[in-house]
Amino acid sequence: MHENVSVAYGDATSFVKRLKEKRPLFVCIIGTSETAKIPGISAAGKNSEFTDYTPPADVEFLLLGKCECIASVPVTPEGIPTPALITRAAIKLAKISVLVVNGGSRIKPCIPFLDVGGSPGRDIRSGRAVDDPERIFHRAKVLGKELAKLSDYLVVGESIPGGTTTALAVLTAMGIEAEGKVSSSMPHNPHSIKVSIVREALRNSGLAFGSLSNDPFRAIAKVGDPVMAAFSGLVVGAAKSVPVLMAGGTQMCAILAIIKAVDPKLIDNVSIGTTKWIVLDAKSDIKGIVRQIAEVPILVAELDFKKSRFSGLRAYEDGAVKEGVGAGGATIAAMIKEGLTSDTILKEVERSYEQITLMRKFDGKAC
Amino acid sequence: MHENVSVAYGDATSFVKRLKEKRPLFVCIIGTSETAKIPGISAAGKNSEFTDYTPPADVEFLLLGKCECIASVPVTPEGIPTPALITRAAIKLAKISVLVVNGGSRIKPCIPFLDVGGSPGRDIRSGRAVDDPERIFHRAKVLGKELAKLSDYLVVGESIPGGTTTALAVLTAMGIEAEGKVSSSMPHNPHSIKVSIVREALRNSGLAFGSLSNDPFRAIAKVGDPVMAAFSGLVVGAAKSVPVLMAGGTQMCAILAIIKAVDPKLIDNVSIGTTKWIVLDAKSDIKGIVRQIAEVPILVAELDFKKSRFSGLRAYEDGAVKEGVGAGGATIAAMIKEGLTSDTILKEVERSYEQITLMRKFDGKAC
Repeated sequence: MHENVSVAYGDATSFVKRLKEKRPLFVCIIGTSETAKIPGISAAGKNSEFTDYTPPADVEFLLLGKCECIASVPVTPEGIPTPALITRAAIKLAKISVLVVNGGSRIKPCIPFLDVGGSPGRDIRSGRAVDDPERIFHRAKVLGKELAKLSDYLVVGESIPGGTTTALAVLTAMGIEAEGKVSSSMPHNPHSIKVSIVREALRNSGLAFGSLSNDPFRAIAKVGDPVMAAFSGLVVGAAKSVPVLMAGGTQMCAILAIIKAVDPKLIDNVSIGTTKWIVLDAKSDIKGIVRQIAEVPILVAELDFKKSRFSGLRAYEDGAVKEGVGAGGATIAAMIKEGLTSDTILKEVERSYEQITLMRKFDGKAC
Repeated sequence: MHENVSVAYGDATSFVKRLKEKRPLFVCIIGTSETAKIPGISAAGKNSEFTDYTPPADVEFLLLGKCECIASVPVTPEGIPTPALITRAAIKLAKISVLVVNGGSRIKPCIPFLDVGGSPGRDIRSGRAVDDPERIFHRAKVLGKELAKLSDYLVVGESIPGGTTTALAVLTAMGIEAEGKVSSSMPHNPHSIKVSIVREALRNSGLAFGSLSNDPFRAIAKVGDPVMAAFSGLVVGAAKSVPVLMAGGTQMCAILAIIKAVDPKLIDNVSIGTTKWIVLDAKSDIKGIVRQIAEVPILVAELDFKKSRFSGLRAYEDGAVKEGVGAGGATIAAMIKEGLTSDTILKEVERSYEQITLMRKFDGKAC
């Protein structure tokens, strides 16, 4: 194990061994949904309408170091910057290549991206959140197979606002207790809003707890989001031949449940990679969800932003944002590949954060 | 050099040395244009309206071994099958991974593809064939840089009907003598039609021979096609760090001229890879065009279909189709990587051709 990568759950020894001295490929899957626009659900954007711009802006920043579709980087309503800053620092320092997959984003990013035929998700309370998730899944599976030939292992992250709410809905439909356990990009986790939205969504779909435990595609179609279909398809396509580090917080639990339902044998070839801020969060419980699904290791990037000179970054230590854009998993891959430390990564994050802040100061439309 | 790869032009020794025992990535760029629908221009489709389906069907076949958007594989009006059969045989036998780029196809393929923001091309006689080719170029360049990190070298092919006519137009606008020299998918090369279309296009654009020799983007915008923008951008992005084998016939000359105008230093890191049927063609002259542009090697895949048991494949020896979907370059990469021979590849082509023919016989919509 690397000194800055710890294990929060399961036995990661053999998985991590397979990543050492290997060439990873980082894939970021983006999407948007109307669910994210329900007031109080998501902090992934200045305001709820802005959530449509957060995923494309995140991946533009990943590839270009600047955003094209918005003037600066995505921020929470409190101005805390996107974790894409961390992801970019990690992949840049460790020279990891990146591909972007559009799982269903309303706004197309101004960069090259892989299309798997997805569209933005509807409000889960409609009971028809995603059109034909199986089609997206199968197309992403074809892609996963090809990408597995190109690299020794995949790190797959996502950016979809409202993703923990749709995760809660799919987990519940699949019979996994997740109420009060999913995380949030807000320090104050709005569990009661999420639970009431999810209960309404399930009711409107004629679903009860566990009624779709063997039908993940119907769960996605009714109360999920398009990124789940693309993400799980990509993992299923790739994990047949290479290890896959699923980079994210409690949203990864829904992906895990889907993968297990589709092809349980593949579970041995996947792990979850996340941040310290997720596993130490008192208001969510990733381990409590994962343990209901499978004995999959949870790897943790020991990032420490306490001493950052920027309050926007110190806010991560107080539970703002926590994870996203595969920040934790990308950091783990960078630490394993190049022996990077939290300090090196923080320094690079601060450098680019400063650059953005300067750009914003001198030119409102610098990007 | 490999026994089945020969050199038709230039000194390929050092280039080929860099490909040996290396891991290639095959990229196929697709697009369509209204130019292809001018009667007599293209045989890349059962009829001219069908040319919109040929590129997406080609790449579906590449990835899946069957087409989704049409019932069988693309054929010429005489029923000669697409060179995608050769490309797929080569990449399958040599375990080369494939990514598809949509440079601007009217019909989206039913497989994962990389989007670089292109749209279908207009009739070049409009004088405004492609919207903002520089934008497509720059996005493809970003992609080329990422893909270069994933592989030791790139093989880039294309599928765009009417591509030799748009190539002739861009070459002429850039001051390269290509009338009577571009190849054709028809055994009888319709030079007079192409020349008259191109002359009309240039006249309507207010252009003369060589008037855009230093402005490749304006040449594409006025009389080119969207694949040229994506293709040249991808090569420019990748060739800074890895060798690039440009897989195609005389269309590659237009790409070469564009790249030379954008960044002449990169020429040292590119070669053209094509088929024997192109270099031996009495009705076109790839060497005569290349030598006007740069001393770039032309590598040739020595495929021999004379003894095929299928008349549709023997027709390649009589000048039908000749090249496309990067067939020559993919074959060269497969020969270098796995020591494959023409016979092994032909056997695989025949196997899948037979399968398609059977599928067609028993079920009109088997794909």
